[in-house]
Amino acid sequence: MNRAVRVLVWNEHRHEQKNPKVAGIYPEGIHGEIASALREGGLEVRTATLDEPDHGLTQDNLDWADVIMWWGHLAHGEVADEAVSRVVERVLGGTGFVALHSAHFSKPFKRLMGTSCDLKWREGDDHERIWVVAPAHPIAEGLGETIEVGPEEMYGEFFDVPPPDELVFVSWFTGGEVFRSGAAYTRGRGRIFYFRPGHETYPTYRHPDVRRVLVNAARWAAPTDGPKPVFGNAKPLEGR
Amino acid sequence: MNRAVRVLVWNEHRHEQKNPKVAGIYPEGIHGEIASALREGGLEVRTATLDEPDHGLTQDNLDWADVIMWWGHLAHGEVADEAVSRVVERVLGGTGFVALHSAHFSKPFKRLMGTSCDLKWREGDDHERIWVVAPAHPIAEGLGETIEVGPEEMYGEFFDVPPPDELVFVSWFTGGEVFRSGAAYTRGRGRIFYFRPGHETYPTYRHPDVRRVLVNAARWAAPTDGPKPVFGNAKPLEGR
Amino acid sequence: MNRAVRVLVWNEHRHEQKNPKVAGIYPEGIHGEIASALREGGLEVRTATLDEPDHGLTQDNLDWADVIMWWGHLAHGEVADEAVSRVVERVLGGTGFVALHSAHFSKPFKRLMGTSCDLKWREGDDHERIWVVAPAHPIAEGLGETIEVGPEEMYGEFFDVPPPDELVFVSWFTGGEVFRSGAAYTRGRGRIFYFRPGHETYPTYRHPDVRRVLVNAARWAAPTDGPKPVFGNAKPLEGR
Amino acid sequence: MNRAVRVLVWNEHRHEQKNPKVAGIYPEGIHGEIASALREGGLEVRTATLDEPDHGLTQDNLDWADVIMWWGHLAHGEVADEAVSRVVERVLGGTGFVALHSAHFSKPFKRLMGTSCDLKWREGDDHERIWVVAPAHPIAEGLGETIEVGPEEMYGEFFDVPPPDELVFVSWFTGGEVFRSGAAYTRGRGRIFYFRPGHETYPTYRHPDVRRVLVNAARWAAPTDGPKPVFGNAKPLEGR
Repeated sequence: MNRAVRVLVWNEHRHEQKNPKVAGIYPEGIHGEIASALREGGLEVRTATLDEPDHGLTQDNLDWADVIMWWGHLAHGEVADEAVSRVVERVLGGTGFVALHSAHFSKPFKRLMGTSCDLKWREGDDHERIWVVAPAHPIAEGLGETIEVGPEEMYGEFFDVPPPDELVFVSWFTGGEVFRSGAAYTRGRGRIFYFRPGHETYPTYRHPDVRRVLVNAARWAAPTDGPKPVFGNAKPLEGR
Repeated sequence: MNRAVRVLVWNEHRHEQKNPKVAGIYPEGIHGEIASALREGGLEVRTATLDEPDHGLTQDNLDWADVIMWWGHLAHGEVADEAVSRVVERVLGGTGFVALHSAHFSKPFKRLMGTSCDLKWREGDDHERIWVVAPAHPIAEGLGETIEVGPEEMYGEFFDVPPPDELVFVSWFTGGEVFRSGAAYTRGRGRIFYFRPGHETYPTYRHPDVRRVLVNAARWAAPTDGPKPVFGNAKPLEGR
Repeated sequence: MNRAVRVLVWNEHRHEQKNPKVAGIYPEGIHGEIASALREGGLEVRTATLDEPDHGLTQDNLDWADVIMWWGHLAHGEVADEAVSRVVERVLGGTGFVALHSAHFSKPFKRLMGTSCDLKWREGDDHERIWVVAPAHPIAEGLGETIEVGPEEMYGEFFDVPPPDELVFVSWFTGGEVFRSGAAYTRGRGRIFYFRPGHETYPTYRHPDVRRVLVNAARWAAPTDGPKPVFGNAKPLEGR
Repeated sequence: MNRAVRVLVWNEHRHEQKNPKVAGIYPEGIHGEIASALREGGLEVRTATLDEPDHGLTQDNLDWADVIMWWGHLAHGEVADEAVSRVVERVLGGTGFVALHSAHFSKPFKRLMGTSCDLKWREGDDHERIWVVAPAHPIAEGLGETIEVGPEEMYGEFFDVPPPDELVFVSWFTGGEVFRSGAAYTRGRGRIFYFRPGHETYPTYRHPDVRRVLVNAARWAAPTDGPKPVFGNAKPLEGR
């Protein structure tokens, strides 16, 4: 791909309107912060939020996007099933999908995974340290051996997702848990990455290493111009 | 598991009633033939079909079964979504699931995979030869290097499923196609196996090697008594 | 397999002779403790140690064994290359191999992995907690969600092994590290499992859950009667 | 990586000198043909051959290369073990490695895989058709659903390599065999790709799709600037 990768950053955008603490951390919204990280990394960005018409998941936005990056938490159930189907179909057709933090429970991610996507969690006084367990993976580019995320919500195993095609990160939490916090999947013609950090009450998306991962993940998830499978009735081939 | 593995063989059971050729090949129904293979292998079997109350997917049958083996083709859409949800929940909770042939398009399999599960196909004059590409896998026990299935419907790549956790078989077809015809997955606490052969107009489920795979797959997919994950809010642990 | 699985427990057996603390913990040697765990689990056991003729890796023992379980640390370099080759050839031919703790640096394991198998380590005051991340895996049978190993040597990422075919366990350590501590591989006709705990100065192999894993791993690694691949020049097949 | 990827194309270069047919097909040597494909794709290339001092695997060439692409067949045994060790160490340290055709039996590939790398083969009248089974993979970029390789030597399963981290291609042969002909691995900080076609008596490396794969594979295998793991004794970390 010779042009810049295009990312549609989707955010539920409810915490920011309800909770002054969150609004204080992310005055432009979580999507605004993520968008700034991606733009700094040289990517093109549009944003979309739940309360826009069609949740902002318009035909025009979906046609434009190479990658959809998704943050949601409070209102997964408010995302229309029809919009979810459009997103899932796009991803299987090649559009990248990056699910962030509590988007483990978002409808598109759950549909694409086929599992409950459930986990343990705790809002406490944990420190999160992310270990890179796949140093050759493009999503680890530019990182050191760890990301010292700092104070964060804990997510713990068992994380009920399919065994990742590639496991890139594992998190350590003070309270005694571990978590597969960077999980890469291929589904159809699309690439999917789950990245754990980003609870709304911590300024995690301003962390330079976390921002680097967002950029790397978007680049990695962008589609390549591979074969478009043809399905259905097929004639025998030559060369028998 | 010290007792015999219990398999609930589910069959749509429509071809047998509509097409005399199929009824001639499988006078006891496809489910009857599969059941006989499993019983010969020492497993306990119940059968269930689409037109029974609750499609035969009753609470009692689901409580009883270690493994559900599924054949369907004409009437995937008639399987009630509520029944599908019960099956999927069971599988994620530990019940094995073996999808046979055209069950690639069955609702439970598609939900568990999260992809379109589409493929190429041809009813022609193909010979199918299955190659074992994972000779150490329990599902290949007792087989030689190939299964000479004989005349069969062709299924060809691209098969739109997640990359298998373990790829056990690859098929060769006369007409020039290949197919990942034995694909093993773990999802939640459950094990899932897709096995390609078994078009209704061929006596494939009487083939000794195919019968052996049915038995092996059921044994492999039967649940083990592993941890039952606890989800939700979690306290910090000792040992910090 | 209808008879009991046969395990050849191999131990370097040097720490026990040099260090009274280790001798106090394992008066019958580390191999003796492991053997007792396996026998309790219903397996048949022989033991072999470095200083026996042929390191105890005799033709007779290798012919007898379904699985080789290996502990070594101080004297990897003293294991003769010729013996290593025999072990590796056996494993590719179907014999299971379970590498324990510091056997990550043993010659057979390194040859089978093809990587440096290096890692971080610390003898300090760490607590190790093992999390099951594959609750459906046979090696997790009978376990809860965690194994509270207790005080142990720390091993930390990056662990330079191939991405596991199946990742079963991840360890948490007090000092801030994580480790992929249960890693399952298939190589040729053989199954290989690496299991982290077991530093010689802690009574880890008396821990009931650790003993359970030893038994499970041996059962899982035991060979199945799958196809014996034929290599070399091959004639075209029928059915074209 | 902002500069062009640098590929060291290594060729045994013996067939070309012994067999006029091969010399006629590849007047510049197999390495010359591969080099031309890579240069057309915008990569930088150096070549090296067995009979050069140090087999051309000099410190300078290894320091320069992002990726080593390897073709060998007749003289695997003549490659000095010391040179093999240098190559393997480089690959684990991040240099990409692409093994072509009969390089399945090359020393570096076998060392990196840890298995016998054996297979079935036939020089006959087979047609090879390669099916893309991972349409989203970067190595499939620009391809259609198949590569019609044409007449080629047959390689058949069982191919005794580790289960690929990513299976990209599966070959169909007229004579009835299949083969996992595009297999991607990560080892240490390095990426490894095995690509099947390229028997010396066929002009396979002039096939546009095959050339495209060579370019894609080199780009994919080129190192990313990820963390350089630190091994050995480690202090506890902050944030406990």
